[in-house]
Amino acid sequence: MDLPQTDYDTPFNITRTSHVVLTVRDLEASRLFYTEVIGLMVTQQSADTLYLRGIEEACHHSLVLRRADGPACERIGMRVLRDRDLDGLKTFFESHKCPVHWGDVPHQGRTLHAIDIPGVPLEICATMPVVQRALTQFHLHRGGCAARIDHYQILVPDVRKACTFYMAAGFWLSEYIAPASDELVGVFLQRKGNPHDIVFFKEAGPRLHHVAFTTPETCHLLHACDVAGTLGYGAGVERGPGRHGPGHAMYVYFRDPDGHRVELFNTHYQAMDLEVAPVRWDPADARMMAPWGLPAQEKWFTEATPFVGVTQSAPQGPAKRMTLERFLGGTSTP
Amino acid sequence: MDLPQTDYDTPFNITRTSHVVLTVRDLEASRLFYTEVIGLMVTQQSADTLYLRGIEEACHHSLVLRRADGPACERIGMRVLRDRDLDGLKTFFESHKCPVHWGDVPHQGRTLHAIDIPGVPLEICATMPVVQRALTQFHLHRGGCAARIDHYQILVPDVRKACTFYMAAGFWLSEYIAPASDELVGVFLQRKGNPHDIVFFKEAGPRLHHVAFTTPETCHLLHACDVAGTLGYGAGVERGPGRHGPGHAMYVYFRDPDGHRVELFNTHYQAMDLEVAPVRWDPADARMMAPWGLPAQEKWFTEATPFVGVTQSAPQGPAKRMTLERFLGGTSTP
Amino acid sequence: MDLPQTDYDTPFNITRTSHVVLTVRDLEASRLFYTEVIGLMVTQQSADTLYLRGIEEACHHSLVLRRADGPACERIGMRVLRDRDLDGLKTFFESHKCPVHWGDVPHQGRTLHAIDIPGVPLEICATMPVVQRALTQFHLHRGGCAARIDHYQILVPDVRKACTFYMAAGFWLSEYIAPASDELVGVFLQRKGNPHDIVFFKEAGPRLHHVAFTTPETCHLLHACDVAGTLGYGAGVERGPGRHGPGHAMYVYFRDPDGHRVELFNTHYQAMDLEVAPVRWDPADARMMAPWGLPAQEKWFTEATPFVGVTQSAPQGPAKRMTLERFLGGTSTP
Amino acid sequence: MDLPQTDYDTPFNITRTSHVVLTVRDLEASRLFYTEVIGLMVTQQSADTLYLRGIEEACHHSLVLRRADGPACERIGMRVLRDRDLDGLKTFFESHKCPVHWGDVPHQGRTLHAIDIPGVPLEICATMPVVQRALTQFHLHRGGCAARIDHYQILVPDVRKACTFYMAAGFWLSEYIAPASDELVGVFLQRKGNPHDIVFFKEAGPRLHHVAFTTPETCHLLHACDVAGTLGYGAGVERGPGRHGPGHAMYVYFRDPDGHRVELFNTHYQAMDLEVAPVRWDPADARMMAPWGLPAQEKWFTEATPFVGVTQSAPQGPAKRMTLERFLGGTSTP
Repeated sequence: MDLPQTDYDTPFNITRTSHVVLTVRDLEASRLFYTEVIGLMVTQQSADTLYLRGIEEACHHSLVLRRADGPACERIGMRVLRDRDLDGLKTFFESHKCPVHWGDVPHQGRTLHAIDIPGVPLEICATMPVVQRALTQFHLHRGGCAARIDHYQILVPDVRKACTFYMAAGFWLSEYIAPASDELVGVFLQRKGNPHDIVFFKEAGPRLHHVAFTTPETCHLLHACDVAGTLGYGAGVERGPGRHGPGHAMYVYFRDPDGHRVELFNTHYQAMDLEVAPVRWDPADARMMAPWGLPAQEKWFTEATPFVGVTQSAPQGPAKRMTLERFLGGTSTP
Repeated sequence: MDLPQTDYDTPFNITRTSHVVLTVRDLEASRLFYTEVIGLMVTQQSADTLYLRGIEEACHHSLVLRRADGPACERIGMRVLRDRDLDGLKTFFESHKCPVHWGDVPHQGRTLHAIDIPGVPLEICATMPVVQRALTQFHLHRGGCAARIDHYQILVPDVRKACTFYMAAGFWLSEYIAPASDELVGVFLQRKGNPHDIVFFKEAGPRLHHVAFTTPETCHLLHACDVAGTLGYGAGVERGPGRHGPGHAMYVYFRDPDGHRVELFNTHYQAMDLEVAPVRWDPADARMMAPWGLPAQEKWFTEATPFVGVTQSAPQGPAKRMTLERFLGGTSTP
Repeated sequence: MDLPQTDYDTPFNITRTSHVVLTVRDLEASRLFYTEVIGLMVTQQSADTLYLRGIEEACHHSLVLRRADGPACERIGMRVLRDRDLDGLKTFFESHKCPVHWGDVPHQGRTLHAIDIPGVPLEICATMPVVQRALTQFHLHRGGCAARIDHYQILVPDVRKACTFYMAAGFWLSEYIAPASDELVGVFLQRKGNPHDIVFFKEAGPRLHHVAFTTPETCHLLHACDVAGTLGYGAGVERGPGRHGPGHAMYVYFRDPDGHRVELFNTHYQAMDLEVAPVRWDPADARMMAPWGLPAQEKWFTEATPFVGVTQSAPQGPAKRMTLERFLGGTSTP
Repeated sequence: MDLPQTDYDTPFNITRTSHVVLTVRDLEASRLFYTEVIGLMVTQQSADTLYLRGIEEACHHSLVLRRADGPACERIGMRVLRDRDLDGLKTFFESHKCPVHWGDVPHQGRTLHAIDIPGVPLEICATMPVVQRALTQFHLHRGGCAARIDHYQILVPDVRKACTFYMAAGFWLSEYIAPASDELVGVFLQRKGNPHDIVFFKEAGPRLHHVAFTTPETCHLLHACDVAGTLGYGAGVERGPGRHGPGHAMYVYFRDPDGHRVELFNTHYQAMDLEVAPVRWDPADARMMAPWGLPAQEKWFTEATPFVGVTQSAPQGPAKRMTLERFLGGTSTP
């Protein structure tokens, strides 16, 4: 099948998923959820903003929560290796006619703000203030012990267009979902050497489907569920624990107090060899969505977080928004 | 609330759940499922019968599978401490006008066959041939590493009647489910010092809802799911992994190739102190069925294995069969 | 080999290990260690006494710490089923010419104080005040998540004498260690249906070698080690994590701030069938002490907690105190 | 302290540790150990050579075992991103006056053979034949479920010299061990985005101290120990399970049937941000070698695998071979 191609010689080096900025209605409620259930550590808190990071993260934040009237995503963040990569990246966005300008963001080095081709507001930097890793502060670990931010999943009406853009920016395609028609309905793209930094699924969008954090072990993933139940978030355990088809990780999805979806998962595989071809999945293959157990509920496919100030559009053409639902949601519990 | 009372001075000593005898259509298919997914060890196999045991069990069998035209349960087994307890137990059955007679069962000591008050065919013995525990044969452990048989769950139309009978036989009530009307709709009864040897839920019956085996750790429970997925039994992972309300165990339910339901679970609590009152659960409490995550599918409540030659009846009175479904099933995914 | 015999018809019913009373020098230091590393819950604290219990325990205490000038063990506790069992037990002690009298102990029902044949001060009761199990208070679980008290190990100069006494009191022998001479150098005795409530090893004594608590899973056992390291108790991780020969459990031994030894372990097997013979171990078999990894350090064999006011004596005869050390310690790191 | 500097602009891109070639005396004995205990999968076997890979590895081999008269290491392997990186790397070796030439190696793409500055025989390629990942063949997973090769540890007399060379080749320094004198006695160098691809410790050398494979979870690491015990390799569990200071991983070290040392470990942290400084460890800090539990035995420091045809030399100057032993081994069990 004809797939977009990675440009391995970009004059900039995006290294990894960095951080996400979400708005929430009640900062204290969010703090309780993210520290006790998900297990993030608080780096800093002001009247309106909470900066959190995973237990192994040395950088200042991977999750920024801002108080606002309603839940939305302000920006998703990427890291580049060196400051000069930002300049190369700015040129890249300009050449694709993407809006781009320098931002001024607290607790980050020089930061580039841009809107990508699918319309997602991005924030890219090369450095953050360094704090102590909490990895060995074992007595402070809580809930899921979220270790580090790993990837985003974004819903977009045109998956191929998003994929083409990111592969031109140097992303590798690790796995993808395509029916017999060869339409791309899901793509897993990565820079950091394992299956995903950013994932696109076909749906009305752009919207943020979820942000994912790794956990050290399956037991932490289950402990997060147990703590969620104890603290009154049991109904927010939306999907799983289960085993993914693509990526093969053990996962669980939570909805936070504002409905933002958070994935905890573990057991990535390493992906840094060019001779290993991307894995293709057929959406009609039941094992793709669920090698075992129950498929996801329909709301897992359709509900997502809007981006602040971004207009959404529905999938076009004969393979409309319902395509993915039919293939994936069609096997879900009605 | 008015609960049946345990007779602590019975002239016989039932010690524990012992074994279950199921009929299956394809012995080889069942063998693959029970050894590779559930992780039982084969003690002995003849043309028509397969004897299995958990990895820590020294007794000859805890699961007996017999080839037959269709799936059913022949008998569930209990153990008494000494042979002479069988005589006391025979008198007990006779005094309750339960059919009872001596059986002659291969690979078991002197065996009593009886029909209990709810109509369940029982098989009680004091000894079995002893084989080597496979507990430290770590290289032979597979799938869920089922450690030992733990309990049965039986569906019956009259839970209080079943409960009264078993408490007269010396069983302790560890937990129970009762709505505001004080009707008993679920009871957890035990002899071996943790929450359950036999559980009764209100439904048409008697039918065997499931037989449960312990697993050493949560990781084995998840590994069983993963192996189920790999070997083509993924759709048979019917419920979970999840956390129980009553008993507090982490569990997963499988349907075997014939549809018999098997639970793997871990993390029992010890229950051998008389001053600790039975725990009451309200079926309207969502945390009872699922402290977190999705509730069970309706079929988990309604489908079960028939006993060979036993007539079933539906619950009577205003609180009919649907009572439990309304309370429990009403919150399940429709 | 000629083994002591269990009396299955004692006119009293000892059900399980109950609690241990230790003296410590600094109650706050001990509280930190036992709550954060071992993971016990505090039930109550007064100026001089701290009452702790495991996360699944509904009874008031399984560990009592009293402030004193130095570390010792005041008493180890056993439970009987009903108050009237205490009367039968009093007669039993008197018939063995053991000192016995009624005690008056806060937070326990009627309590019998006795000195057993090996000289260990015991405390036996049938009831305690009931508190809420913390089993599902997952957000409060810490360190090893100690679930419940399981057993004691006692060092005595004459193991056969201790074994004979306890089997006369109804204890079952699950496993034992004996060289070719058939001398009993280690015995594992139980009442609650798994391998041990009380263990005797041959050494100068009587002294309390350790008290053991179960953990839900291996991951909790390792988390206890990690928290110990973080909080400055890393050097107190004395032995393990490792796999036991007898009992087959995964274990780790800690020394508390006063040097009392505490074992965390998991994965018991069930032991409630009379036809299963006790397991014999040869102390010369390296797999007995360590199926894998390093053997215990010598101090694990020789250091232990004295009982308050109890005179110790050394093993007698040709197989003196060093017998066990030679067999067991001989393979330890010199 | 004055540390060697990474060249971030090398005209070649080394991506990761790739494979190791060991000689063994009995291929069947090694096969049993590496498949059942370590949990590697066999890709291919000929009369004299066995090719193994981890369960998540798609490339043909990460461990090559060749039958020979005695145990040694033939070469350690590295991967580059593209074939043309090999040309740049050849120039690099030549500029450092390192022996280098093209090799012809079965089941590898174009391969460069070189001797690095510390004298270690290397083998670098850009591609291997691709086989199916066994990651989801859960029913075939055994023992430690070794997931992928992660790093080597090499003993060399001059750690700074080795470190300088590898940082010139683009390696990042993640952690290092240095006493107050600022001598480098241990360095952890990486390319793949977590703490180590190659580690150097000060000792007579060059010798291969160990090759390390990741495991999915701690439970697999412990299962490897248990299987080792069952299959007669219990004495080969040389160190651990324990927690590392540098890198913070949970680990266990095995000696294979020929004495080659293999580490299994899990829970890496991500390391791909330039603003995070390398972590310095003081060898006098007991928590460096063992945050908890027993320190390594002396043989862990001193015994290692020779490289075929490579002359070894001892550390020079006042800080001789014993420096590390004094700092590290001095706290080991005597």
